[in-house]
Amino acid sequence: MLNFEFKNPTKIIFGKGQIENLGKEIPKDAKVLMLYGGGSIKKNGIYEQVKNSLKGFEVIEFGGIPANPEYEVLLDALKIIKEEKITYMLAVGGGSVIDGTKFLSAAALYEGNSPWDILKNNIKTEKGLPFGTVLTLPATGSEMNSGSVITRKETQEKLAMGGPGLFPEFSILDPLVVQSIPKRQLANGITDAFTHVLEQYMTYPTQAYLQDRFAESIMQTLIEIAPRITKDPSDYEAAANFMWSCTMALNGLIQKGVPTDWAVHAMGHELTALFGIDHARTLAVVAPSHYRYNFEAKKEKLAQYGKRVWGLTEGSTEEIAQVAISKTEDFFHSLEIETKLSEYTTDYKGTAEKISKRFTERGWLGLGEHKTLAPSDVEKIIEMSY
Amino acid sequence: MLNFEFKNPTKIIFGKGQIENLGKEIPKDAKVLMLYGGGSIKKNGIYEQVKNSLKGFEVIEFGGIPANPEYEVLLDALKIIKEEKITYMLAVGGGSVIDGTKFLSAAALYEGNSPWDILKNNIKTEKGLPFGTVLTLPATGSEMNSGSVITRKETQEKLAMGGPGLFPEFSILDPLVVQSIPKRQLANGITDAFTHVLEQYMTYPTQAYLQDRFAESIMQTLIEIAPRITKDPSDYEAAANFMWSCTMALNGLIQKGVPTDWAVHAMGHELTALFGIDHARTLAVVAPSHYRYNFEAKKEKLAQYGKRVWGLTEGSTEEIAQVAISKTEDFFHSLEIETKLSEYTTDYKGTAEKISKRFTERGWLGLGEHKTLAPSDVEKIIEMSY
Repeated sequence: MLNFEFKNPTKIIFGKGQIENLGKEIPKDAKVLMLYGGGSIKKNGIYEQVKNSLKGFEVIEFGGIPANPEYEVLLDALKIIKEEKITYMLAVGGGSVIDGTKFLSAAALYEGNSPWDILKNNIKTEKGLPFGTVLTLPATGSEMNSGSVITRKETQEKLAMGGPGLFPEFSILDPLVVQSIPKRQLANGITDAFTHVLEQYMTYPTQAYLQDRFAESIMQTLIEIAPRITKDPSDYEAAANFMWSCTMALNGLIQKGVPTDWAVHAMGHELTALFGIDHARTLAVVAPSHYRYNFEAKKEKLAQYGKRVWGLTEGSTEEIAQVAISKTEDFFHSLEIETKLSEYTTDYKGTAEKISKRFTERGWLGLGEHKTLAPSDVEKIIEMSY
Repeated sequence: MLNFEFKNPTKIIFGKGQIENLGKEIPKDAKVLMLYGGGSIKKNGIYEQVKNSLKGFEVIEFGGIPANPEYEVLLDALKIIKEEKITYMLAVGGGSVIDGTKFLSAAALYEGNSPWDILKNNIKTEKGLPFGTVLTLPATGSEMNSGSVITRKETQEKLAMGGPGLFPEFSILDPLVVQSIPKRQLANGITDAFTHVLEQYMTYPTQAYLQDRFAESIMQTLIEIAPRITKDPSDYEAAANFMWSCTMALNGLIQKGVPTDWAVHAMGHELTALFGIDHARTLAVVAPSHYRYNFEAKKEKLAQYGKRVWGLTEGSTEEIAQVAISKTEDFFHSLEIETKLSEYTTDYKGTAEKISKRFTERGWLGLGEHKTLAPSDVEKIIEMSY
């Protein structure tokens, strides 16, 4: 087991009807900026619930934060924060709205020239403008971690940021919100969370037995509830397990003491930036090829995963590891998630070279748990994903 | 899944050589009271490591906190805290030293007449005197929770307290400390942590799939490392898994969203108060009888545990559940932990009536996940434990 530090101060308020407790979590004298996305919360009743529990607060709204939160849009919100002297933010949405709010939390107190530097120079935020969240779309885990990914349209870039000052003070997780999520988003959420676990697990054995089992627990639970939740999103118990699994998949716990990979995300982000493919779907495209390309390095963990998560019993380590990759693809397919780039765009030729070149230009020092994957490896993996 | 709130702000600093980072976690101008137990830390080198990393701080020491921390002894420390205007405490020890420090954290800022009222009236501490810990004995999970159990010798009472103000600010978990722990204490630690998980798991199914799997993960890991760690406590990887499992067993996570029992602890505490039997051993005495006595209510979870944790495949739900209880006893025996009261004392006759009477006098309203166990049930369970 590797040495680690772990601290996660976010307060989780989980369960049926918890949105009405929102007001108790925000300082009484706060001037609140409420942030949300495309407006689905106005159709499913969440907007009303939130507004009701914010009665008595001074609230300004900022809607329209798009999927893959865009820097340009967020700058408009930043202007409001500064002009209106906002003291607290409330993100009502999924990972995009929460990630956008984290950028604003950092940018509001940033004293440098351009807030883009926070992303470009990967500046760790020690103290941000305080904020809470009401999660409307389980997937990214952003509601209980301190990381964020922001997109800049003009340069087709998608960059990560974070720091201990960017944990939400509280996050309200009411599984009832799941019932109004479209099936496509549910499939994305399950795939995203599942791949988050894979990134923190599918490396090499380090005798971190407990972390391995926790990771396997999350994947087993996602596999168990996937058919229930996609068939009937109003299945409360399935929704509750889905929601809690997504949060636990990326709140820092399972990555402590173990090596992590994250190459699938690095490559997937490029596919979103280039083609606008849903984040989760890019992960499903890249992951199988990544595991096949790095099979020798990962086969021990692939076999452990095959045995424990998929119940495989027959065959050698290599055979079980290979079947485990196929099982993963089958799982994505069962969610109607395609796993080849050519199923998302006809314009895929040259993508591998293009992404490889972008990594080279950005001075990328190596991907994967050993930090050894070069742009030339990335090129091959993306080619295998066509 | 039940509604829940979860917040755990303790910073964990885990791994080889982490004690030397201690000084960075304490405010530079702090006046520190360093608390420890019977002095084993002076033999195993931990005392030196701690003192080295506290260089530059004003430090007063208070040693001699006994197992099952005694109220009377803690009052002496409380006097020092007040007289010396201590601003920060550092607990260096196992659950007893940390629990004692939590009592002091609460008592130092308590404005009522007698600090015993905190325990007698179960007063929740919202804000305590800040403290950190250096864990020297994995077992209780006290290093990452806000609960404490204090003993009062003169009345043979053992009472619990807690509150959000009693989380350690940080806890240093260096698995190297495990190598100097006597085998008896290692066996106690494993048994204690294992039973903590049982108390939060062995109730009835509530479709909390992830929590169930996390609980099973901890038990599987404890079973996996138990023979290694008792054979060779310098086996670092086994020690690291042991340490992290003990912490995760009682840091609040696995109990969220599920019913919990804790009747085994309530009864076990009485056996410690009456006979001075090691805490963990009292749990091993009571748990099997408790599960047999409440078999109908718990058989579904007992069978799930039998299948997933012990790999049982043959038989009916009832049969697997029965074997699962025996497997648990076998596990305790493998650690040289006896599971009958008569193996600890010849003076056990009348204990069941005595404990039952104490519960009646204390106005106990019912034990177990349904809060339905009466003092008469307690009497029968203790009798079955003779």
